[in-house]
Amino acid sequence: MKIINLDHISANPLLPEVKQAMIEAIGADYGNPSSQHRMGERAAQMLEDARKSVSRLVNAANDREIVFTSCGTESANHAVKGVAFANRDRGNHIVTSNIEHNAVIRSLRRLKSMGYTVTSVSVGADGRVDPADIESAITDTTILVSVMHSNNETGTLQPVAEIAAIARKRGVLFHCDAVDSVGVVPVDVQDLGVDLLSFASNPFYGPTGVGGLYIKRGVRIWPLLEGGIQEHNKRAGTENLVGIIGMGKAAELARRELDQRMAHTAALKKKFLDELPNYIDEYIINTHPEYSLPNMLSVSIKYIEGESVVLMLDDENFAVSTRSACATGSLRASHVLLSLGLSHADAQGTLVLAFGIDNSEAQITAFLGALQRVVKTLRDISPLYRRSAAEG
Amino acid sequence: MKIINLDHISANPLLPEVKQAMIEAIGADYGNPSSQHRMGERAAQMLEDARKSVSRLVNAANDREIVFTSCGTESANHAVKGVAFANRDRGNHIVTSNIEHNAVIRSLRRLKSMGYTVTSVSVGADGRVDPADIESAITDTTILVSVMHSNNETGTLQPVAEIAAIARKRGVLFHCDAVDSVGVVPVDVQDLGVDLLSFASNPFYGPTGVGGLYIKRGVRIWPLLEGGIQEHNKRAGTENLVGIIGMGKAAELARRELDQRMAHTAALKKKFLDELPNYIDEYIINTHPEYSLPNMLSVSIKYIEGESVVLMLDDENFAVSTRSACATGSLRASHVLLSLGLSHADAQGTLVLAFGIDNSEAQITAFLGALQRVVKTLRDISPLYRRSAAEG
Repeated sequence: MKIINLDHISANPLLPEVKQAMIEAIGADYGNPSSQHRMGERAAQMLEDARKSVSRLVNAANDREIVFTSCGTESANHAVKGVAFANRDRGNHIVTSNIEHNAVIRSLRRLKSMGYTVTSVSVGADGRVDPADIESAITDTTILVSVMHSNNETGTLQPVAEIAAIARKRGVLFHCDAVDSVGVVPVDVQDLGVDLLSFASNPFYGPTGVGGLYIKRGVRIWPLLEGGIQEHNKRAGTENLVGIIGMGKAAELARRELDQRMAHTAALKKKFLDELPNYIDEYIINTHPEYSLPNMLSVSIKYIEGESVVLMLDDENFAVSTRSACATGSLRASHVLLSLGLSHADAQGTLVLAFGIDNSEAQITAFLGALQRVVKTLRDISPLYRRSAAEG
Repeated sequence: MKIINLDHISANPLLPEVKQAMIEAIGADYGNPSSQHRMGERAAQMLEDARKSVSRLVNAANDREIVFTSCGTESANHAVKGVAFANRDRGNHIVTSNIEHNAVIRSLRRLKSMGYTVTSVSVGADGRVDPADIESAITDTTILVSVMHSNNETGTLQPVAEIAAIARKRGVLFHCDAVDSVGVVPVDVQDLGVDLLSFASNPFYGPTGVGGLYIKRGVRIWPLLEGGIQEHNKRAGTENLVGIIGMGKAAELARRELDQRMAHTAALKKKFLDELPNYIDEYIINTHPEYSLPNMLSVSIKYIEGESVVLMLDDENFAVSTRSACATGSLRASHVLLSLGLSHADAQGTLVLAFGIDNSEAQITAFLGALQRVVKTLRDISPLYRRSAAEG
């Protein structure tokens, strides 16, 4: 039986038009965009066409501000380490939030081991950073602020424009990790006022293994990958042209269909939230009711273990996640959920749902039924639940 | 008219079997190898199958010693910077050669700006590093030796096993940039005794935008991309699965067909070299007659400009290069050719030929004719040539 994908944050199907564009690129043997002869001309043209599509999606002032990378993680590493290294003479202090993706967290941890200092601002119980806290954290030695656009475990949106304005006022560069937002909700780098913005292709139904980094003209940054003169000297290495062409097509479609996709997934999320009380009780919604991605929802279900729910739902042909795919294999409770004030026990019982354009209302109904069965089975064998029921 | 590709170092066609494997991967929507549910299982399996093929191609002792990257440049940056950062407490000195690819050169230049010191050993007139010079350059603070397997502008092979033995004896890590060798000539990481080895997929007719880094078990190195726990914690980021599957298939075929491909391209190179004197005079062969890749040849033609030759040959439907595609756009004379003792003028008149499995003897004959016409046309308008002819 076909698996119903409610985990679009880790695995999105490629759009048919994206598949077609990639298959054509494979067939065409475009060559190397940096070749000196005619064979490379078409490749260079395809590369710049894709860059234009991606540039439009985030509304860069100039297409040259878009650098293609191999993934959102590379983009974030490039932004954070590249700015830190290039601006070491100006200071060694970086301000961030305590709910960032590991690509930012681990880059910062590495920088700390190299003599940088990091102030990590806590989010409120609503999962959002208070811009005033960022402002207080900035010192004379601060060279970078890095706060994400939407959280990858809850979908909660951050007040990026306000934080960007503060950073600008204080003369500090601002990086925004927007991997789960670009192509999912409107992201306009000029409106937001960011200096750097990381994103990836797969959240908007493009291929994995290709991402982008917006670097505003004039930003002082070192390349992460150095060598040849590709990507206007900002990122060396022969380009993943097939992937980039796929990303370009996906960006074009995302821009055109954004409103429609948002409406579709928001309706599924609303249906799920409205009907959930009819199926299970004792749960916590971790996602902000208003400021959140239309397609994402994090729910912690008491007295159960998320991993067990995922496996049992898999048997019922539903793909869901307990947290981002990037953290799979880690046994520790999510730093994001703990930052919201959840207990370790409640954090363990968390499901992350990410609805997609290929999901239907009927699938949501079927999923709610499956979830009810699974939760009942797991709670029936849970000592915690039995104790709580006895006490209640 | 179809262009005849004699520039296989910058642009290799994908093998039909590689195209097929990539197209199947695009159609299959394998999902994310790190997913917690069943959807990711097949993806994880495909990823590990590809790793096994690549591991076999370089004869790693364990498949886990292979890390997939986004290109040869990422592999080299990862190796050089990763070792330098991770071993800073042991020393800050790095030994290299003066003919490395820019991925190594620029990584080292960056490290120099961060307090590392670099000794760059000159090659002899034959284009080869003398292992004794490496040994002399190693000091008590040396933490890394980085020397390439074959040069990307001449194809000349370096005495890698001897250098590796010296590094091992002195307790220094050794990285080998083997981007133009792996899949082209036999490369056995265990026989060579290297600690790290960089390579890419496109030199053996796999896709661009995917590479590999061999990291011997136990080597102390930092990741370049940090974040999720992909690639056994050695390289974060959602994988370019389509590209990796293509690389795996290309590796499998390269291993099987290596002898045959070497014989085919060596015959073309021999034919070209044997017949060249019948078509033009006054040229210098920059490639080592014995220790070189079977498919590569660098020839400097006196009194002409390489760029003009490339453009005029393009008009005759032959794709060739004056130097590696990674250096296109750079106006400076090649550091590699100058290191061989060539004058600036002679270095400017250089053609780099890289023959491929899709080339034929008839194409070589046709190319020699075209080259003769182009060189005559250019020399007829060259003041240098007329002066030399008048003096001669």
